[in-house]
Amino acid sequence: LESRKFQQITSVYGAINGVEGIINENFLDLTQETTHNLEQVANTPSSAMFSTRDKPDESYCKEIFKVLKAHDVRYFFYIGGNDSSDTVRIVNEEAQKINYEFRAIHIPKTIDNDLVLNDHTPGYGSAARFVTCAFAGANLDNRALPGVYIGVVMGRHAGFLTAASGLARKYPDDGPHLVYVPERAFDTEKFIRDVDRVYKEFGRCIIAVSEGIQDANHIPIIQNLVGEIGEKDAHGNIQLSGTGALGDALGNLIKKRLNIKRVRSDTFGYLQRSFIGCVSDVDQHEAREVGEKAAHFAIWNNQDGSITIQRTGFYSVDYKLVPLEQIAAKTRHMPDEFINAEGNNITDAFKFYARPLLGSGMPSAHRIRAPRVDKILNK
Amino acid sequence: LESRKFQQITSVYGAINGVEGIINENFLDLTQETTHNLEQVANTPSSAMFSTRDKPDESYCKEIFKVLKAHDVRYFFYIGGNDSSDTVRIVNEEAQKINYEFRAIHIPKTIDNDLVLNDHTPGYGSAARFVTCAFAGANLDNRALPGVYIGVVMGRHAGFLTAASGLARKYPDDGPHLVYVPERAFDTEKFIRDVDRVYKEFGRCIIAVSEGIQDANHIPIIQNLVGEIGEKDAHGNIQLSGTGALGDALGNLIKKRLNIKRVRSDTFGYLQRSFIGCVSDVDQHEAREVGEKAAHFAIWNNQDGSITIQRTGFYSVDYKLVPLEQIAAKTRHMPDEFINAEGNNITDAFKFYARPLLGSGMPSAHRIRAPRVDKILNK
Repeated sequence: LESRKFQQITSVYGAINGVEGIINENFLDLTQETTHNLEQVANTPSSAMFSTRDKPDESYCKEIFKVLKAHDVRYFFYIGGNDSSDTVRIVNEEAQKINYEFRAIHIPKTIDNDLVLNDHTPGYGSAARFVTCAFAGANLDNRALPGVYIGVVMGRHAGFLTAASGLARKYPDDGPHLVYVPERAFDTEKFIRDVDRVYKEFGRCIIAVSEGIQDANHIPIIQNLVGEIGEKDAHGNIQLSGTGALGDALGNLIKKRLNIKRVRSDTFGYLQRSFIGCVSDVDQHEAREVGEKAAHFAIWNNQDGSITIQRTGFYSVDYKLVPLEQIAAKTRHMPDEFINAEGNNITDAFKFYARPLLGSGMPSAHRIRAPRVDKILNK
Repeated sequence: LESRKFQQITSVYGAINGVEGIINENFLDLTQETTHNLEQVANTPSSAMFSTRDKPDESYCKEIFKVLKAHDVRYFFYIGGNDSSDTVRIVNEEAQKINYEFRAIHIPKTIDNDLVLNDHTPGYGSAARFVTCAFAGANLDNRALPGVYIGVVMGRHAGFLTAASGLARKYPDDGPHLVYVPERAFDTEKFIRDVDRVYKEFGRCIIAVSEGIQDANHIPIIQNLVGEIGEKDAHGNIQLSGTGALGDALGNLIKKRLNIKRVRSDTFGYLQRSFIGCVSDVDQHEAREVGEKAAHFAIWNNQDGSITIQRTGFYSVDYKLVPLEQIAAKTRHMPDEFINAEGNNITDAFKFYARPLLGSGMPSAHRIRAPRVDKILNK
């Protein structure tokens, strides 16, 4: 939409399936799409032009550049996380080598929130809103019918999404009572002690864990537990994602070690990254703005780089273009101040950081506070 | 709120943990709660006065009646599904036996939507909205990165909630492409053929299954598959709910039999019955009305019974009081006209039935329709 406003832009192409679409010349002519429909598509989760599993290397990126050159593409915008930014970096270097006039911009989007130099990334706010709402509901459900509840949240290396589980805590005994992120080594014995302590205090325990939790030797916990408990798939392989195995293994461990009967685990899986019924308006707004800014930097200013989100107040942001090589293929982790000293919960600093990203209209749970009726039968 | 309006009502008590609270004399004096806070609690998912696992029998119900009598309780309102209505029936019979002036009303609420004589039940619309939104998102995600996706939905005997998975289908190739409910015997070989056919046609396949699917001999499918694939918990038991086992087992089966690489399964678990971020306003409205009507029937009309929802138009409802013994301990299943002849999908009749229950403001997915760009390199 923004690029179409510039007179020097004759066409706007969309690559189907990302880089795969480029090397196969599968382009849509977005210049011929109505403004009204594009606005509707902007409100639809997931990638409207699909995604890809291809991980471009140097020679793949050279192929990309050949096609872009053949179609006289002079501006290249690519949306995604750190792999995507690396693609943009290499393609741009190819253009520079042969003095082809070319502007390349990486536009951030990842629910993992793991791009360096960014306060946060588009996609995170909406996924975090889902996780926050899910744990708020699970907490109410578990309070009505107590037991141990484990929610497994996406995040192989960064715990930002799992940490969002704690943002709806309101009353002192609200869960999740324990939050485990990949940034801290997961000690199974410590975990059992944590659960035991919380269960004894509240008569229930809600736990949020990242799917990527690892032990001190960087062995994924699912691998440890599946070994211990003996669950394997049909081929004898340990499955790490798209499965309920980690949640089930942790649940079985608690049952076995603490002799607690009602233990339930949910793996949030793909629900959390594409749920159509729960979107952060702040996230939507910023996702639109990084796209607009990309067109501005490239077409007005003739600059290459990666768009970053910078926080300027509580809550306000601005956008800065940074060199591609400063973003490309780097991973950001949760800062220490967002994780408590024990490594089993989030801090108020994280809440202050993340709460505005969930957007407006966040629901809040309420409790009855009526006094008890005096007993007559003294039961 | 409604009962407090009647002059003859001196106090309104709330039982903590349902019947458990009654036999232990654990009551809240709801007369002393503010109207404003009760309105806030009404917008909070789950049961504000908690739930119970106790399944009252005849002698348990007699204990209930003793406590109600001691506190001079003359009106008894109990919220829940078919077990709850049976409790109300027995307690009421006790009162009649000793000529105790007493009115007892069962107020319907269950996400399973399985009460007889009701068009639908409060709770179902909001849970269905979650399931509909979840599959709408999963469909978009799976379209962007194709494969097989299995979503396991709550429902041990009735498939209404699983059937809601298909309500957001808009474009001809939208998923879920296959929907399996407990009302039809699940044939594993037929299932494999179904998935194979859909995958060959669309290059992807989205499947919704009820956790309670059974084979022709009423053996739960999870039990069949866990036997075949060899997954058991630490105690050698087959776990049936609160676990990802069924989804994982079906996923492994597809991988093994159809040699499809990208197979993912999500088990919606507890998220679907308490999600705070996604509520049907129609459901909320009706849940309030059945409560109001209960007070009217009991206090104005001096009647006992179960409140039922009757559909009177598209879309309008009215409420009818029916005798307790007509509802108590009975289970309603999906009518035949809601399931297709092959037993692997829902019908338009179901969509017509269920769509209004999701409420207003349902999001809708949109696609880019721009034309293809002509190839130059003929790749």
